[in-house]
Amino acid sequence: MGRRTARTPAIRVDTTPSGPTTRPRPDTVAVEEPLEIRVDGTPLTTTMRTPGDDFDLALGWLLSERAISQAEDVAAMMHCTDVDESGSPTFNVVEVTLTPGAELAEGVSARRSYTSSACGICGSESIEAVMNADTPDLRASGGDVRVDPEVLCGLVDTMRAHQVGFDRTGGVHAAALFTTDGDLVALREDIGRHNAVDKLVGWAAREGRSLRRDHVLLVSGRAGFELVQKCVLAGVPVMAAVSAPTSLAVDLADRAGLTLVGFLRPPRFTVYSGAERLGVS
Amino acid sequence: MGRRTARTPAIRVDTTPSGPTTRPRPDTVAVEEPLEIRVDGTPLTTTMRTPGDDFDLALGWLLSERAISQAEDVAAMMHCTDVDESGSPTFNVVEVTLTPGAELAEGVSARRSYTSSACGICGSESIEAVMNADTPDLRASGGDVRVDPEVLCGLVDTMRAHQVGFDRTGGVHAAALFTTDGDLVALREDIGRHNAVDKLVGWAAREGRSLRRDHVLLVSGRAGFELVQKCVLAGVPVMAAVSAPTSLAVDLADRAGLTLVGFLRPPRFTVYSGAERLGVS
Repeated sequence: MGRRTARTPAIRVDTTPSGPTTRPRPDTVAVEEPLEIRVDGTPLTTTMRTPGDDFDLALGWLLSERAISQAEDVAAMMHCTDVDESGSPTFNVVEVTLTPGAELAEGVSARRSYTSSACGICGSESIEAVMNADTPDLRASGGDVRVDPEVLCGLVDTMRAHQVGFDRTGGVHAAALFTTDGDLVALREDIGRHNAVDKLVGWAAREGRSLRRDHVLLVSGRAGFELVQKCVLAGVPVMAAVSAPTSLAVDLADRAGLTLVGFLRPPRFTVYSGAERLGVS
Repeated sequence: MGRRTARTPAIRVDTTPSGPTTRPRPDTVAVEEPLEIRVDGTPLTTTMRTPGDDFDLALGWLLSERAISQAEDVAAMMHCTDVDESGSPTFNVVEVTLTPGAELAEGVSARRSYTSSACGICGSESIEAVMNADTPDLRASGGDVRVDPEVLCGLVDTMRAHQVGFDRTGGVHAAALFTTDGDLVALREDIGRHNAVDKLVGWAAREGRSLRRDHVLLVSGRAGFELVQKCVLAGVPVMAAVSAPTSLAVDLADRAGLTLVGFLRPPRFTVYSGAERLGVS
């Protein structure tokens, strides 16, 4: 399995009134490597990611992209074990084998590139693409979920205490699942925000753990459209971000019935949709 | 032209010992909308971006992806002006017309998805894909470029003072070009870090401004592989990031002869490659 951090030569510089002082010191950086996801031999995508939990990443990505409709569509996942030029094994291709009878959703590649035949393309269409008959109804499945604002604020410290990769590198995002009581369920770190969430989605699917009730997703950065999309499709009823949401993320959350919290910076936060679950509407 | 920020209803919550206080207050968020880039009628990509400078974004993306080799390959760019369902005009498709005789690089779409026929895929191959005969030789073109560490530290405040979108939303990244003397040349903000850099690259190309000498690129977040790749291909000899680099970014910078600075947090920073341009090697 690939490393998650690497050491690299570096020079620390401190500019002082009497001129810069320099200190050569190896630095720990987050590893970034491509991961190619193949299904039954066909490459579907390559994402730059931090190695680790690659099967979860592959499964989560397939589910988030609706390339498959359920974890049971996957019969097996394996790392290809070719070697690179230097003779070292690479673990950068995950080969997914579907169960007999299962097949990829039609037009997965085409949909991924948002290709539209009409001239108009707008945010509303992006939202329409998420909302279809298969989309979890967050108002129904998680309508009576409640999270105490104090508990919500507490999630930040809990997540921060578990961001081992961030402590070492200062360069990886985190995503974490909590119960509505504030207990940490799982946390993943990755140089890609989207990968961290996909790894959680894939993990839960492999565990057979439904996220549709009593779960909260916390992300260490901003809440953009694609992250909210992953949360909605996974059925998580409450999502909180340490930083800002975007316009389209708020629109999608509102449409899907997701509780979306931004700027979660205890003791304060901002609610953009679904405030009733926090008892502050 | 689309708006760069939008107002949305929101509730500010403050958890106090005596229970949460709530204050409904409209919030300003960064606009996120899809932009489809077409060349001679063929859709190449769709990126989620903050509207504005769309032609620069399209041109910068085409150059950064090496879909075209020079700005002169583009004869015209126009916004499609269809309307969405509500009858409002959308400005989310840029149609690029190539000059007679110019054509897209072979396999642009295929290359974008990093599809490899071999089983092995690794970071080295990602670097090889950047480094070819067309890649600017940063050691040659920018070998004698020098930046004073004090000047480098000063860039952060200058950029921060111009991050208008961030001030309003707290949710957009910035990328800025400076001269080696610390003068701000251009700054762009976008919900996508990559878009902000593409907008700068496209702007410079339209202006006929070579970035290969005496320029510094500063980004407000981390320095990942793809951002460093854009910097290298644009020929900028010095790149600084407020946050951490990744392993592959450092490897590429080292290979390409780029000066890469991370954690630029005055009065300190860390140099990962090309320290000689800062006089601290």
